Amino acid sequence: MTGGYLKGRIRREDIISAAAVVYGEAGYHGSSLREIAKRVGISHAGLLYYFPTKEALLAAVLERRDAEDSEREQLTVPPGLEVLRHFVALAEHNVRHPGIVDLYSRLAAEAVAPDHPAHEYFEEHYRQARESVIGSFRLLATTGELREGVDPDFAALTFIALMDGLQVQWLTTPADVDLVGSLRFYLRTLLAVPLDPED
Amino acid sequence: MTGGYLKGRIRREDIISAAAVVYGEAGYHGSSLREIAKRVGISHAGLLYYFPTKEALLAAVLERRDAEDSEREQLTVPPGLEVLRHFVALAEHNVRHPGIVDLYSRLAAEAVAPDHPAHEYFEEHYRQARESVIGSFRLLATTGELREGVDPDFAALTFIALMDGLQVQWLTTPADVDLVGSLRFYLRTLLAVPLDPED
Repeated sequence: MTGGYLKGRIRREDIISAAAVVYGEAGYHGSSLREIAKRVGISHAGLLYYFPTKEALLAAVLERRDAEDSEREQLTVPPGLEVLRHFVALAEHNVRHPGIVDLYSRLAAEAVAPDHPAHEYFEEHYRQARESVIGSFRLLATTGELREGVDPDFAALTFIALMDGLQVQWLTTPADVDLVGSLRFYLRTLLAVPLDPED
Repeated sequence: MTGGYLKGRIRREDIISAAAVVYGEAGYHGSSLREIAKRVGISHAGLLYYFPTKEALLAAVLERRDAEDSEREQLTVPPGLEVLRHFVALAEHNVRHPGIVDLYSRLAAEAVAPDHPAHEYFEEHYRQARESVIGSFRLLATTGELREGVDPDFAALTFIALMDGLQVQWLTTPADVDLVGSLRFYLRTLLAVPLDPED
């Protein structure tokens, strides 16, 4: 690895980090490449060398977020209780990193517009999240670990929605919202078995 | 009522309506009084006559939203199943008016920042929403209409969060999300009695 290449990698990562902070503060639409360049301490032209468009930088921020999430929480474990435990662990991690939650909530709300550059990303994000959880709830239904009469598909959809809605409410009124406790409460209403020994 | 006064009222309402549309499209931070004036077909100075600041206009948009919601759904009915039915009716109304949901979701996500001019509004909004629902779930717990072992306070907090999270997911992937069905599903997991004859 040459010094120049390494320097380029570091600079690129710095820009992505600064962009994540600015999106969290001002939203994607409210941000500018000029402002992000200023935070990193480089020129506007210097930033354009790495990210020629706002969209290219947004894509890099989202890619990094996904890579970090899946590395940390291994959300690709086989279906079952373990998947639900990983989502609870993800929530525990998020509570300690409100900046990540803020960025995600802001972008998700902006990107409901079909012409937003992150719209497809979030469509795909929701599909994947639901699929991963649907598989688990369906399996738990067959093993009798899901409470009788609970529809696995509705359980999955509402579980993902609850995580999202809790995050915004928690960011707004942190003292009133026990984010992880609320998720555990919800899983207790759905499951016929304890989620884990703490439950 | 003089003709001039009436004209002023109409103009004021037009500006509020245009602002709601622009906030839904670009967020509050991404909007400008200049753009909103253009939509109404008046000058920037003309708009400043009614709303001297961005914050004043935002406050008017939020006030009108609240007035419409509470007039339509009478969210101040006495605690009990009726309150929950009103929330489901509110969701049914929202499904037919995605623009309102869009505006609300965008602003709520922006306003998690403590220095956002709508931050206090959303703090208060969440407190009131939770309180209204907590009272109902507590009452249902005493009458045996809440499923045994369900904590009324967690039930209220998660119910409000679920509504919020469902809205963003529904706006992003409308074909995949049955918003009203999901709320009813959740209430069925919490209640020991049917919500209404349709249930």
